[in-house]
Amino acid sequence: MTFKKVKIEQNLFSQNEEIARENKSIFTKHKILSLNFMGAPGCGKTSIIEKLIPELLAKKIYCGVIEGDIAGSFDSERLEHYGIPLVQINTGGACHLDALMIKKGMENLPLKQLNVVIIENVGNLVCPAEFELGVDCNITVASITEGEEKPLKYPLMYSVSELVLLNKIDLINVVDFSIEKFTRFLRQINPKAELIAVSGRTGINIKAIKEYVLKKMGLL
Amino acid sequence: MTFKKVKIEQNLFSQNEEIARENKSIFTKHKILSLNFMGAPGCGKTSIIEKLIPELLAKKIYCGVIEGDIAGSFDSERLEHYGIPLVQINTGGACHLDALMIKKGMENLPLKQLNVVIIENVGNLVCPAEFELGVDCNITVASITEGEEKPLKYPLMYSVSELVLLNKIDLINVVDFSIEKFTRFLRQINPKAELIAVSGRTGINIKAIKEYVLKKMGLL
Repeated sequence: MTFKKVKIEQNLFSQNEEIARENKSIFTKHKILSLNFMGAPGCGKTSIIEKLIPELLAKKIYCGVIEGDIAGSFDSERLEHYGIPLVQINTGGACHLDALMIKKGMENLPLKQLNVVIIENVGNLVCPAEFELGVDCNITVASITEGEEKPLKYPLMYSVSELVLLNKIDLINVVDFSIEKFTRFLRQINPKAELIAVSGRTGINIKAIKEYVLKKMGLL
Repeated sequence: MTFKKVKIEQNLFSQNEEIARENKSIFTKHKILSLNFMGAPGCGKTSIIEKLIPELLAKKIYCGVIEGDIAGSFDSERLEHYGIPLVQINTGGACHLDALMIKKGMENLPLKQLNVVIIENVGNLVCPAEFELGVDCNITVASITEGEEKPLKYPLMYSVSELVLLNKIDLINVVDFSIEKFTRFLRQINPKAELIAVSGRTGINIKAIKEYVLKKMGLL
């Protein structure tokens, strides 16, 4: 029974990877930079995306968004006023986005008009890291209210990301959090990931994320 | 392929439920109250448990703890100084505890000496809710830094819990959070769950959790 399960899971994973490769080639064909924001529930993924989009629009960089949630469309509604192309995916219970969901999401975006596709994954520090989507850049959003030890407790998530955004830095004086400790733990899991301390609420360092994106696009 | 997967998942779920029933009967046989703390990474499960244990010990209520983590033993180490029986389960990647893990955890606890078994599930607001463990009481820990809409975004988690602890209430003046909104959203998903606003950091309302536990034990 166990063996059977493992085998089928492997098939599912390899099927997922195949679709992820297709997604990647579609993004590449359209010269689109694709970003996959992952992180725990409430870490502030949407707040950061909300602040990042106008920064990019001001540079005439056109974004589409794929929002992943188990249920509801709270996050999409928060982004609606930008008038940008938005696709809401409800996983109906599933704890992560997979490559097929992204493929279907892309079919509903005007790819020819876009420079960047932002994916907001389901709030979950475990499962989304297991499913490749075919994106250029995995981003983990951490928040200082979660505690410093999270990279060691959720190693896969932190190891698959090339950018880590340490959010809610505006609260640094009211919570017990050592940036030095977090950085040290992160380095044990992922020595190379870029780390930017930000605040989606107040806008601290959102410009640094924009610069990261511009660099990835070859514009800086 | 999809059908096959669903079938096996159903088998796994029914297998899990069978073991959960066994766990339940072992807890009952030993007159042990079992509590399953669930919640997002960093919501403060451990901090609450850390403050709750001495309150219970002061009433001569003896606790054992089963700590569930993907990797590491940070949380167990925080509880070690109480000198209580502790079992650390590392799921090695899995995003939740299941009934079999609890069964094995129980085999390593001196059940005859215990009144309460506290289980701290893997930090995840999705998957742990899908796996019955055979406990008396599912508890969801929410934190005000996560935002008000979480019950609607993670409905299963909030629907399976009879007690919701709204943690980090000490930060109510520095984050944008409406208790009224959260309560309204929670009631849409779960009209009956008891809601207690607490702070694991400062100890606010930990006594109310103790009283909840005493009531469940028939001691109040």
